[in-house]
Amino acid sequence: MSGTLKGNMLIGQSGGPTMVVNASLVGAIEEAFRHPEMGRIFGAVNGMEGILGENLVDLTHEERGIWERIRVTPSTALGSCRLKIKEKHLQRIVDVFKAHEIRYFFYIGGNDSQHSAHQVLQLAESEGWDMRVIGIPKTIDNDLPEVDHCPGYGSAARFVVTATRCIEKDNEALHPVQFIEAMGRDTGWIAAASRGAREDPEQDAPHLIYVPERPFEEDKFVEEVKEVHARLGRVLAVVSEGLRRPDGSQVTASKRVDAFGHQQLGGMGQYLVDVIEDKMDVKARWDKLGTMQRSFAYCMSETDLGESYEVGRLAVWHASQGVTGKMVTLLREPGEEYVCTFGLTDLENVAEQTRYLDDKYVCQDRADIDESFLDYVEPLALGRRLTLGPEFVSFPRLKRYPVERKLPAYEP
Amino acid sequence: MSGTLKGNMLIGQSGGPTMVVNASLVGAIEEAFRHPEMGRIFGAVNGMEGILGENLVDLTHEERGIWERIRVTPSTALGSCRLKIKEKHLQRIVDVFKAHEIRYFFYIGGNDSQHSAHQVLQLAESEGWDMRVIGIPKTIDNDLPEVDHCPGYGSAARFVVTATRCIEKDNEALHPVQFIEAMGRDTGWIAAASRGAREDPEQDAPHLIYVPERPFEEDKFVEEVKEVHARLGRVLAVVSEGLRRPDGSQVTASKRVDAFGHQQLGGMGQYLVDVIEDKMDVKARWDKLGTMQRSFAYCMSETDLGESYEVGRLAVWHASQGVTGKMVTLLREPGEEYVCTFGLTDLENVAEQTRYLDDKYVCQDRADIDESFLDYVEPLALGRRLTLGPEFVSFPRLKRYPVERKLPAYEP
Repeated sequence: MSGTLKGNMLIGQSGGPTMVVNASLVGAIEEAFRHPEMGRIFGAVNGMEGILGENLVDLTHEERGIWERIRVTPSTALGSCRLKIKEKHLQRIVDVFKAHEIRYFFYIGGNDSQHSAHQVLQLAESEGWDMRVIGIPKTIDNDLPEVDHCPGYGSAARFVVTATRCIEKDNEALHPVQFIEAMGRDTGWIAAASRGAREDPEQDAPHLIYVPERPFEEDKFVEEVKEVHARLGRVLAVVSEGLRRPDGSQVTASKRVDAFGHQQLGGMGQYLVDVIEDKMDVKARWDKLGTMQRSFAYCMSETDLGESYEVGRLAVWHASQGVTGKMVTLLREPGEEYVCTFGLTDLENVAEQTRYLDDKYVCQDRADIDESFLDYVEPLALGRRLTLGPEFVSFPRLKRYPVERKLPAYEP
Repeated sequence: MSGTLKGNMLIGQSGGPTMVVNASLVGAIEEAFRHPEMGRIFGAVNGMEGILGENLVDLTHEERGIWERIRVTPSTALGSCRLKIKEKHLQRIVDVFKAHEIRYFFYIGGNDSQHSAHQVLQLAESEGWDMRVIGIPKTIDNDLPEVDHCPGYGSAARFVVTATRCIEKDNEALHPVQFIEAMGRDTGWIAAASRGAREDPEQDAPHLIYVPERPFEEDKFVEEVKEVHARLGRVLAVVSEGLRRPDGSQVTASKRVDAFGHQQLGGMGQYLVDVIEDKMDVKARWDKLGTMQRSFAYCMSETDLGESYEVGRLAVWHASQGVTGKMVTLLREPGEEYVCTFGLTDLENVAEQTRYLDDKYVCQDRADIDESFLDYVEPLALGRRLTLGPEFVSFPRLKRYPVERKLPAYEP
């Protein structure tokens, strides 16, 4: 490993927020404060968008006390973006690095973000710009490769379990057929977490769990709902938003068309309600966990919060030791007790890869998640963080002191 | 007031659940334990449905320790119903009262439920069956007349404020136009509660609040969204599910039709997203608070929980003193400090009446709720109840020991 590299540090957040992604930011910043070779500490406003627009803020000027509060504030204190970085953006990004003497770059995000970080590093290296780039994983989807689990997932899982248990009480009162739509366009990790809500296998919800890893057959679905309804007089099913039929088509796309001949849009939940109310003489309804499953801070998992801080902190520490082109990983020690360790993987191993629910967790004969999944998910989701006071929960904002621009405005 | 009336006591829960409606149940039951003249304590399973079906349970047999846990369990431990009681049902109900020697009947519910209780009492009296009937108010909608506020509303309001603040953090990350759909088919009390989330009037959400009390004009709506978007680069609006156009039509009914020529169904939120994405070059999305706003127990308000217990307890106490044909009311003392007192009103004053948001709270010139509403709503929503442990929240169920039937099966 090489020695001390002097220069400024830049950090950005990308993609869908989580309840704990600010903990990673704060972990990285607090570690950077310990390394005098990292001169100024810059934040990119809205991730790569902010870098392209040279919209940087100087985090050194923020009031020191704010970081402890930002750490437990959901979502991204620096803003985020959904920008897919293309070839044409890369030169501008490296130009901004050079103009602001940035030698350390940390990007908090999912697989697309790590891919971007990798591309930027490659160009910088080819131009002889000595710098260190480390990726910090984050996604409630839990679908990054090379890790046991992703920061953000445990808190989302805790929210899903809590919401399922609370909604179930409502379901017991009026006994409709009820769907809970969870995020997950390609993978079922979030919906699968609801398995943690079921204690009594005879009556507790969720009675059915539908994930994209198991093809969705409508006839079978109706039969499964009917079976539970006949047995309990009510049904609560948790569904991933991205279910697919055996032919690969999305179930979210209704067969109904609008006045212009377009396929009717709308949530999976509404679609399933329509199917069931057409086929059974029951009342059906649906809940959408929506943005709350990644922002409802009362459900933060202490485990998740702590690990998220660590991956941020370790990214900066590794960079200070000369590491570059890597993402910090979260691994699990074998054994009964849950122990998380942290490793490193090449950024290119993560780029554009998706990790699906393991086969062993997805029941094929019925719409369910195997009990063995509980050993996986519970340690990630347990633990609490926010202490509820009598006041409404309240979150701070960074002041975001702007860094003076040094380049002409960006014309994409 | 008359003296001691000996006989059994029956209690039921009706309508949409709330986070704290079990507190009213437990308050009534614990008070009834103190009155030996109330012999056995029966619960009606699913409210009036259970009375018609003679589906009663003996609550005296439940383990004593369960009541403390049921008190903080959301939704209805006895089940609920949406049955609108008609003339033809009344005789059967009175027959069940007579068969089970029921002299005390308590019904926890909204205006329809209080109407039913009133009708039942009238028939019993006309047949010379001496009994005492007291209504216990409950509704997150907060739309009962004769009260300052309704048990259940404060906790729903707390959830709405919390959800708005958490979702806002997400909104700040990716800055779309975002809608939060709150319950409220006829009144805007629940959506109005989101006003409590706004501290900084310059930038805090909600930026716009749409309630049924203010006619919804689509052009104005688009202009209002555009104005906020131009100013902040993001928009978070809270909307009641029951908005109406100036001609009285529901906004939830889209103008789009399906392949069969039917109006497209679907949430208000999706409809507003469609309107905005058609008219502006922005990404829009929506969250539906759904069942969580009445069941997410982490957001229970201690004030609401305590008052809900009291109205249940007082209903039974008043009945023991000879009162009948009344509903317990919640009033507010004039003055700076929030003080809730409890009164009584005739059941018939409540039946089929709706209380709308006061004019003074609804801004007419813009989509907003006046600041003065904060003095109204905050005391109801503040205070916490559940202490979050490291484990998932977990709720008990009653055993529901059935009461032997004494009548032939009911044939409606």
